[in-house]
Amino acid sequence: MTKKKFKGILITLEGPEGAGKTTILEKILPELQKNGVENGVEILTTREPGGIRIAESIREIILAPENTAIDGKTELLLFAAARRQHLNEKVRPALAAGKVVIIDRFIDSSVAYQGYGRGIDVLDVEMINTFATDGLLPDLTLYLDVAAEIGLARVMAGEREINRLDLEAQEMHEKVRKGYKTIACANPERIVPIDASKDVEAVAQDTLDAIHNKFPEIF
Amino acid sequence: MTKKKFKGILITLEGPEGAGKTTILEKILPELQKNGVENGVEILTTREPGGIRIAESIREIILAPENTAIDGKTELLLFAAARRQHLNEKVRPALAAGKVVIIDRFIDSSVAYQGYGRGIDVLDVEMINTFATDGLLPDLTLYLDVAAEIGLARVMAGEREINRLDLEAQEMHEKVRKGYKTIACANPERIVPIDASKDVEAVAQDTLDAIHNKFPEIF
Repeated sequence: MTKKKFKGILITLEGPEGAGKTTILEKILPELQKNGVENGVEILTTREPGGIRIAESIREIILAPENTAIDGKTELLLFAAARRQHLNEKVRPALAAGKVVIIDRFIDSSVAYQGYGRGIDVLDVEMINTFATDGLLPDLTLYLDVAAEIGLARVMAGEREINRLDLEAQEMHEKVRKGYKTIACANPERIVPIDASKDVEAVAQDTLDAIHNKFPEIF
Repeated sequence: MTKKKFKGILITLEGPEGAGKTTILEKILPELQKNGVENGVEILTTREPGGIRIAESIREIILAPENTAIDGKTELLLFAAARRQHLNEKVRPALAAGKVVIIDRFIDSSVAYQGYGRGIDVLDVEMINTFATDGLLPDLTLYLDVAAEIGLARVMAGEREINRLDLEAQEMHEKVRKGYKTIACANPERIVPIDASKDVEAVAQDTLDAIHNKFPEIF
């Protein structure tokens, strides 16, 4: 009997600033990889721009602190362009090869940040997402939910460089969070909300549980 | 009596490679400026990215010959982002100040090149144009029409640097031209087609006539 083959699986991690996406992913990755090895499935973790040259150049334009003249709509178009290149050059080939791809931020970030956060019509944001991704949806989205005061406190205490998007006020964070909650509520079959105000161990366990529940044959 | 005030006017120049847009504009500008001075109207000629720093950076990504991995949809999103910044930072302020703004290439280029030329759904291209421009339409569009063999011969004989988009084949040129003809046909109130296969003097005169017919009180 040949080894069971899995179709590629797309998992996305979402959440406002300071939700702990990166920390949690690092924490759970060894366990996921162990399961993957046992079941013959390779795992690729990535985030836009993900080393894709064109996408990196686009992100540099968006995140440059001196580019304050960029408005929300321009930002959305640029994020969509970077997303498409990252998908085309990195994510789709991995999915086609049967891998499990975990992306840190994807389409829901645009809806939450540029839509609910910056006030661009949510239907427009979804339309541009669909255009950029050719309608590709994650098989599972883990939404790490955290209140503004906790999230922002974590960001400011962190050691990574503060970028322009981090400098948005607490009010913005609350709008983004409200956006995420609305998206999660409207897509219960795809999105699992996780309480990210708990300590790291607990959040990591809840995240692992959510992945296991969705894909028990692999994880 | 105070001097008559004009609302800002937006004129765009369109056409396939080698139609002679730049040459014609240079040729007719002194006459337009003379009329403008007589009627108290200032004229601004520009083209995307038009010295707008963010738009320049975006165009560098699009036109870099080594970036062949950019597909049509990514290109469209990037053009739309550059267009928006050019509008926001340069064109809209000039229109608000009552100027006549003449842009070399605008929304119809996206429909002709990325839509008809590269095969992206024309409705998608129009939707992204509308998103990027907030629905701003030119008051007059001069479409310089030229056959592929004439247009491409002009480009190759020219002294300006050949960029990636110039390297598209004759077949592409024909698709783009067909696109322009379709757009012109569908928007007769806005777009005036001009036979750009004639010699420069004749094309310049036809272009001036078209502007005069539309805005007799100024030009």
